[in-house]
Amino acid sequence: MAHVSIIGTGTMAQAIASVVGRGGHTVELLGENDQTQVTGDIVVLAVPYAAIPAVLAARGDSLAGKIVVDITNPVNFETFDSLTVPADSSAAIELAAELPQSRVLKAFNTTFAGTLASGTVGENTTTVLVAGDDTDAKSTLAGVVASGGLKVIDAGSLKRARELEALGFLQISLAANEKVSWTGGFGVVA
Amino acid sequence: MAHVSIIGTGTMAQAIASVVGRGGHTVELLGENDQTQVTGDIVVLAVPYAAIPAVLAARGDSLAGKIVVDITNPVNFETFDSLTVPADSSAAIELAAELPQSRVLKAFNTTFAGTLASGTVGENTTTVLVAGDDTDAKSTLAGVVASGGLKVIDAGSLKRARELEALGFLQISLAANEKVSWTGGFGVVA
Repeated sequence: MAHVSIIGTGTMAQAIASVVGRGGHTVELLGENDQTQVTGDIVVLAVPYAAIPAVLAARGDSLAGKIVVDITNPVNFETFDSLTVPADSSAAIELAAELPQSRVLKAFNTTFAGTLASGTVGENTTTVLVAGDDTDAKSTLAGVVASGGLKVIDAGSLKRARELEALGFLQISLAANEKVSWTGGFGVVA
Repeated sequence: MAHVSIIGTGTMAQAIASVVGRGGHTVELLGENDQTQVTGDIVVLAVPYAAIPAVLAARGDSLAGKIVVDITNPVNFETFDSLTVPADSSAAIELAAELPQSRVLKAFNTTFAGTLASGTVGENTTTVLVAGDDTDAKSTLAGVVASGGLKVIDAGSLKRARELEALGFLQISLAANEKVSWTGGFGVVA
């Protein structure tokens, strides 16, 4: 059994909590401004990209030694025409640089909250793509997600977060333009 | 009815030709080194990214006024760890700069040849994502693809080719690492 802390209380935080709970693991949801110490071995930062600096300022030290999961899509929501991170980087790579004592993973940014909650993207079982440089950390997170009834694919090193964020941006862009619904998007067929 | 010229004779060229043919349109396949004049109103450059300069040198002038479709994934096939285009650009944006008299579209780079030929990605009808700055050109190509039994989604301006190429790279990377099969990958659920 894993014990998972989720920072954030929005729809993504709740959807990820439901996946963790379905797998029989314990989970705590903490508000962005909650000062309670995190107790999980896995800490999911389920906050908007813009809120990450405040979370790091408040909690950065307490994340040492933990698996930290970045789910953000750093979309420029004013233009909907680009990401706000440098083209040759990613939110996850930036986060890993800020948290050298943590094992940072990218996950959940290519799955809408609705597809995490339902477990399906159309006829496809929802697949969580995970990128990271620590194989054990990826295996631990994969086990939690799989026990919650979803599929998991190891997408490679943390460098692949750049492509995962491009995919997340594209999917959000398609939904915002009503080309796909917020309960659809990209399904993965193994 | 459209008349489509396809430069290239590999698996992608053949798969795209089969889609065009299923829709009742006429199609010609021309080898990379074939000197025959292209006759199509739509010209699909179904060659590897590395072969594009030679095609432009031989045929660039004859592509003026035509809809030119870039299907390439400029993956660094030595490392399988990056694209070979600048991080803030794309193969399609580069091509459009070389062909100012053509209407350049990005399409077919997120669909494996097997899923174009079969018309399905698992249980999902294969969806071709198209990006480009010319709405009429996108509509023309979409009509051809849809009449061939596939779904089409307008993914936005040609700038979105960057995200389509990231998606294409990610999908190739997953297949090369046996995380998905070459007849699977990303399905799109509207």
